[in-house]
Amino acid sequence: CARMFTVYFPFRSQIGINVTQIRLPKQCTEDQVIEELLKLNDDQRVHGVYLHLPPAFLTSRVLNTLKPEKDVEGISDVNVGRLIRGDFSRGFVPPVANAVLDMLVKDDGPVEGKNVLLVGGKRPLQLILQCLIEKSGMATLRSNRNRNHLQRQNVVRSCSRWLQDQHYRPWRLHPLKLQPLTPVPSDLEISRAQVAKPVDQLATEIGLLPEELESYGRNKAKVRLSLLDRLHSQPDGKYVLVAGITPTPLGEGKSTVTVGLVQALSAHLKLNSFACLRQPSQGPTFGVKGGAAGGGYAQVIPMEEFNLHLTGDIHAITAANNLVAAAIDARILHEATQSDKALFKRLVPSVNGVRKFSPIQISRLRRLGINKTDPESLTSQEISNFVRLDLDPKKITWQRVVDTNDRFLRKITIGQASTEKGQIRETGFDIAVASEIMAILALADSLEDMKNRLARMVVGTSHSGLPVTAEDLGVSGALAVLMKDAIKPTLMQTLEGTPVFVHAGPFANIAHGNSSVLADKLALKLVGRDGFVVTEAGFGADIGMEKFFNIKCRASGLRPNVVVLVATVRALKMHGGGPHVSRHGSANLSLVAGGCQSNLKKQIQIAQQFGVPVVVALNVFKTDTQAEIDLVCQIARECGAFDALPCNHWAQGGRGSVALAQAVKQAASKPSNFQFLYHSEMPIVEKIRTIAQRVYGADDIDLSLEAQTKIDYYNQQGYGSLPICMAKTHLSLSHMPDKKGAPTGFVLPIRDVRASVGAGFIYPLVGTMSTMPGLPTRPCFYDIDLDPATEEITGLF
Amino acid sequence: CARMFTVYFPFRSQIGINVTQIRLPKQCTEDQVIEELLKLNDDQRVHGVYLHLPPAFLTSRVLNTLKPEKDVEGISDVNVGRLIRGDFSRGFVPPVANAVLDMLVKDDGPVEGKNVLLVGGKRPLQLILQCLIEKSGMATLRSNRNRNHLQRQNVVRSCSRWLQDQHYRPWRLHPLKLQPLTPVPSDLEISRAQVAKPVDQLATEIGLLPEELESYGRNKAKVRLSLLDRLHSQPDGKYVLVAGITPTPLGEGKSTVTVGLVQALSAHLKLNSFACLRQPSQGPTFGVKGGAAGGGYAQVIPMEEFNLHLTGDIHAITAANNLVAAAIDARILHEATQSDKALFKRLVPSVNGVRKFSPIQISRLRRLGINKTDPESLTSQEISNFVRLDLDPKKITWQRVVDTNDRFLRKITIGQASTEKGQIRETGFDIAVASEIMAILALADSLEDMKNRLARMVVGTSHSGLPVTAEDLGVSGALAVLMKDAIKPTLMQTLEGTPVFVHAGPFANIAHGNSSVLADKLALKLVGRDGFVVTEAGFGADIGMEKFFNIKCRASGLRPNVVVLVATVRALKMHGGGPHVSRHGSANLSLVAGGCQSNLKKQIQIAQQFGVPVVVALNVFKTDTQAEIDLVCQIARECGAFDALPCNHWAQGGRGSVALAQAVKQAASKPSNFQFLYHSEMPIVEKIRTIAQRVYGADDIDLSLEAQTKIDYYNQQGYGSLPICMAKTHLSLSHMPDKKGAPTGFVLPIRDVRASVGAGFIYPLVGTMSTMPGLPTRPCFYDIDLDPATEEITGLF
Repeated sequence: CARMFTVYFPFRSQIGINVTQIRLPKQCTEDQVIEELLKLNDDQRVHGVYLHLPPAFLTSRVLNTLKPEKDVEGISDVNVGRLIRGDFSRGFVPPVANAVLDMLVKDDGPVEGKNVLLVGGKRPLQLILQCLIEKSGMATLRSNRNRNHLQRQNVVRSCSRWLQDQHYRPWRLHPLKLQPLTPVPSDLEISRAQVAKPVDQLATEIGLLPEELESYGRNKAKVRLSLLDRLHSQPDGKYVLVAGITPTPLGEGKSTVTVGLVQALSAHLKLNSFACLRQPSQGPTFGVKGGAAGGGYAQVIPMEEFNLHLTGDIHAITAANNLVAAAIDARILHEATQSDKALFKRLVPSVNGVRKFSPIQISRLRRLGINKTDPESLTSQEISNFVRLDLDPKKITWQRVVDTNDRFLRKITIGQASTEKGQIRETGFDIAVASEIMAILALADSLEDMKNRLARMVVGTSHSGLPVTAEDLGVSGALAVLMKDAIKPTLMQTLEGTPVFVHAGPFANIAHGNSSVLADKLALKLVGRDGFVVTEAGFGADIGMEKFFNIKCRASGLRPNVVVLVATVRALKMHGGGPHVSRHGSANLSLVAGGCQSNLKKQIQIAQQFGVPVVVALNVFKTDTQAEIDLVCQIARECGAFDALPCNHWAQGGRGSVALAQAVKQAASKPSNFQFLYHSEMPIVEKIRTIAQRVYGADDIDLSLEAQTKIDYYNQQGYGSLPICMAKTHLSLSHMPDKKGAPTGFVLPIRDVRASVGAGFIYPLVGTMSTMPGLPTRPCFYDIDLDPATEEITGLF
Repeated sequence: CARMFTVYFPFRSQIGINVTQIRLPKQCTEDQVIEELLKLNDDQRVHGVYLHLPPAFLTSRVLNTLKPEKDVEGISDVNVGRLIRGDFSRGFVPPVANAVLDMLVKDDGPVEGKNVLLVGGKRPLQLILQCLIEKSGMATLRSNRNRNHLQRQNVVRSCSRWLQDQHYRPWRLHPLKLQPLTPVPSDLEISRAQVAKPVDQLATEIGLLPEELESYGRNKAKVRLSLLDRLHSQPDGKYVLVAGITPTPLGEGKSTVTVGLVQALSAHLKLNSFACLRQPSQGPTFGVKGGAAGGGYAQVIPMEEFNLHLTGDIHAITAANNLVAAAIDARILHEATQSDKALFKRLVPSVNGVRKFSPIQISRLRRLGINKTDPESLTSQEISNFVRLDLDPKKITWQRVVDTNDRFLRKITIGQASTEKGQIRETGFDIAVASEIMAILALADSLEDMKNRLARMVVGTSHSGLPVTAEDLGVSGALAVLMKDAIKPTLMQTLEGTPVFVHAGPFANIAHGNSSVLADKLALKLVGRDGFVVTEAGFGADIGMEKFFNIKCRASGLRPNVVVLVATVRALKMHGGGPHVSRHGSANLSLVAGGCQSNLKKQIQIAQQFGVPVVVALNVFKTDTQAEIDLVCQIARECGAFDALPCNHWAQGGRGSVALAQAVKQAASKPSNFQFLYHSEMPIVEKIRTIAQRVYGADDIDLSLEAQTKIDYYNQQGYGSLPICMAKTHLSLSHMPDKKGAPTGFVLPIRDVRASVGAGFIYPLVGTMSTMPGLPTRPCFYDIDLDPATEEITGLF
């Protein structure tokens, strides 16, 4: 085989294998093939071989030459005949590709860098390669796939490039210049005055590969999770949480501190850094609050895109959530109007005379304790158990959602059309971000984990008291399909051109209020050992930070290095006894000191209970006096903060937060002694009590009868080891919004307890939580407009 | 100024101007500047000059040198001082850019190819250029913006490239090879076996510029409307409509014929061609029907992406529709609980002591006949008229929507929470594609047109009988913002790698059921004079085609060249007296002949009334006999079809539709005598009667009292000249689904009449139309799943 030559199609797969193709010339002899196979048998660089040869070579001699451990799962001999007949697009290619992947995964040794050789004809092997590429989640083949005959030297070059690509790439970030103006213009004016870098340029600068990026227009892109595999051996960067003291109703600027801090770290201290932010609900954008992209010279741009559809994740959640709801009510109707036999006939239909369970139905049978797979073998009792979810309409906990502030949907009656045959019931809509699916998106650490969580979601209880899950409804596979793109974090940038992930935005009371685990994980790999990931927790530290530690870190396995605690003179005055809502107070050192000694001190102590150093960031307003600023920083240090600094990112961008960035860098170099506040195996009541006493400062808790009954039920159902997600007001450390400072001597009432089994937490209700905002008399949309000639948006803020 | 040099930043704006920058060296004299300006005055290639010079040069001599007609709207002298102070990011740049654009637009001559020179310092001019680029809707500057010092020769090259870019580019399409298998595999298997071209490659092949494309991942991209400006002088291609005979409930394959036809035209006859398809609702994907990407070897790929979120257009419609709904009910509540004075105080709030109407409120005042702009000057009666929409809760026609088959939302009661203070009312949800906003998306021919239509939408009637619009609610600007990306058509491809636009998918009964005007317009420019655009109408020709001609073509101004009428032997047998739902009938020539002589003949005649030649496409099933096929084609020709041909795209891809493609090409070369069926100024009743008699074959119409009352009301409100959109069953030419063939001797009952004022049509109801499908006992979602390792979807069809 003097003319035998090798064509390489090197590519990166999710599990990091190399696939190489060897082509045999047409005029080859059997002996030459065997000789080639013997070489492959002995070649330690070759971990698997897939044979595709003309029929003449498929002799037992040839087939038996290849060592079994190198044979790709017996596919060679079994299917090769079909392949020869050109039958390779009939669902045949995926099994081959699967077998290749399976073989590598099953093997004990490390997977990365393994080589599989595909030997044989060009067209089928190309198809298999393409399929492998698709399966491994890659966008494109790295080598030039349009050329049919690659020169060996090109190939060698592309191979070595490919090997380099496997490794971490140092950043070559080109920050955007800022020239802040005084007075500070509106957020939208600032956002629009800066021209964002094309997102693919930003991606290249921070070491992403083209095939890891899915652009959505020019300014935003989803990042593929395959990045985690590529960089799995790369050490994580430092993990910084931004939390806040108990805020005024106006908010104290955690988002702007987060953005300002990464601008300072990346653009000014030249340290790789990433901000991880929550995606805001679109409801408030058109209601009262406006957007959530940061503000002033610490913003994510373009802020319009951040605040509107983004890459459609919340829309996907809405679609998935409402598919579950539709499935629930349709199922109740069908069960109410059909016999067991009719239901069974329809649920397990006869296709060409054969009834077969779908995989999702087999899962339900397993949970019912029925270990059968042949539909004909079920007893009539088993059939009844299988077909009847027997949902109690009064005990359905699943609500529908819209991403609109639509208060009239808070409580509604559905099913009133005659077609629904009187199956009416009361229910309601929540805002989309309150969906359990949003909490799952934020906590999942892989596609598989998300799919499993979606399947476990409990939507209600049967008349006999059994939980009914999304999988019981047969809908969980479809949910995973609807959510498959939403699970990829969205890359955007700050005003200074530094990278930001926007991903997930669960409610901060009935859920945990933190951005996604996956965005943090991707960012920690991308920044590298000496880099920083700054992520934000919702509400005050008593809620957002506590849930970040006890729920999010428990789910992710990540350990934080620093807490940045955001305070404002305005909020501190309130805690010191000043008015509760005041935009511009006059200087008052004693109120400020009072606030520091109460709320700030307590919030610092909460962080310290978790063993993480605290840097206090005083978000400076132009009305603050130097004496006030100095006082806050001084007391904060006395109360145990590692450091405390004023920051001026709003007026100055990253330059205004350089001192904060330096303090964070120093704090992160200290060893962190992170520990959870409670073990997950502690009884539910004890977990609630621990949080109430050690975080909120309560004397004890007071469980209602309803709460106690629910806890007993959850224990009985095996949910007892889930962590706790308190649904408490964020306006006080206690349950009483009016009690500012650091209240003591109170007993925390637990009105009710609920569970998000898929997301994986129990949430006790301390008071009433609204899960659907309303529109005021004059919503912000009165000012929002679009210039059709320029496509320019006005009125967003 | 020997060292004076020129830097060009050529770029394409929406209005096709060139902007060029001339830099003056620092050591320039006043005389040299004047000399330069005099040259510009006389240079006929220069259409406008914007001066930005150091203060020393801002003498009246210099300022007066420039001819007034070349001065960019007096900006030079007024603002140059501010610019010098580096103040150019404070909202200053956009006015300059606006002035540049304004000057060119206002001028009488043709705008395209005009040159503006910006003379002066680098940084401010760069900012202005960037702003112009943003305003003109461009993604990137064509020349290399990162190099600060461009070589003149590079620049000249990029200029001439830019000039070439202005023109139509011939296609260099590389079709994908198909190797169809027998038997034909499942749709998903076929889709997955083909590897789609990257969408940016497809875009380049069909002459799109990179900045006209907004990719959404690898397989789909939105195309910017600026394309229409760039190619406005390019002649349109041929416009082909695919319609069908009255179908069986299973559908007769219009989508597959459409896709097969463009595969044949592009990949086999090498003629530029584009398919324009509707985006399917996600509801049926998880319900009964499955997807709508075509089928067999005539599909849009990847079919999963086609059938799921696509680029989020339907989600945007849902968000916009439900924002209107939330605004309606919130407004009713606020009006019910507040005095005129309180409402006015909130609707026109005092900001820094000044009350001001927003533009959208001024519009409402105008409609009320109040020509005042100072809020303080309104009388108390005017205030009352202004603040009270006074919506009659019983006469609200606006429904909420979800893109889910959720039958329990068909009729609901809302507002039952105590926070809504007893303002309960009955309403319902429709499937998202039934929203009037979807019909608007499909009919709008620009962003401005869409915005105006959104503002005109009537959501209900006041107690005094006045229509209340989206603009009255103050929400229409926000709707345009929500819809600003949805208006751009989405580019995908067929199995053979030929281009497809997917855009809009309005309901085919209460709306007009056709894909978007804009997709058709963009495609007609892209294919060029000798190319073909094949677009599809919903339902049978009596509905889809009639609405295509009378509504869509009236809105777009486009004129069709050919109608392709899809028939199947199965449906013809039904019309000839055979069973209504039969997948596999035995050969029966007399039933086939009966169907041809009745329904097929009638549908051909309908198309001919509009003056457009008809080619009958017989969608061949494997059970059809050659005798049946020959018979259909023979009778079709006898009934006046230009030609009639069997097509085998399902089994063979484009190759199976080559004969059809050739016939369409021939038919398109005939002159078309297109005419509307009625003038828009004809009275509403006459328009309805004309359709009933001339299209459906009815003897007359029978108006209910309710219908007559509504017609009187619409006439009184000035909606009398809107076209008619009949809401009739598609299963018969008559209103009785069981009457097959070509029924005669019936009177068409008009139960009620409604109006979509924003979309721009009146829709008479012939019978009851369901606008919300339900889920069956075993919805398709039972089979839909995602493999988390490979991200592969199973169970879609």
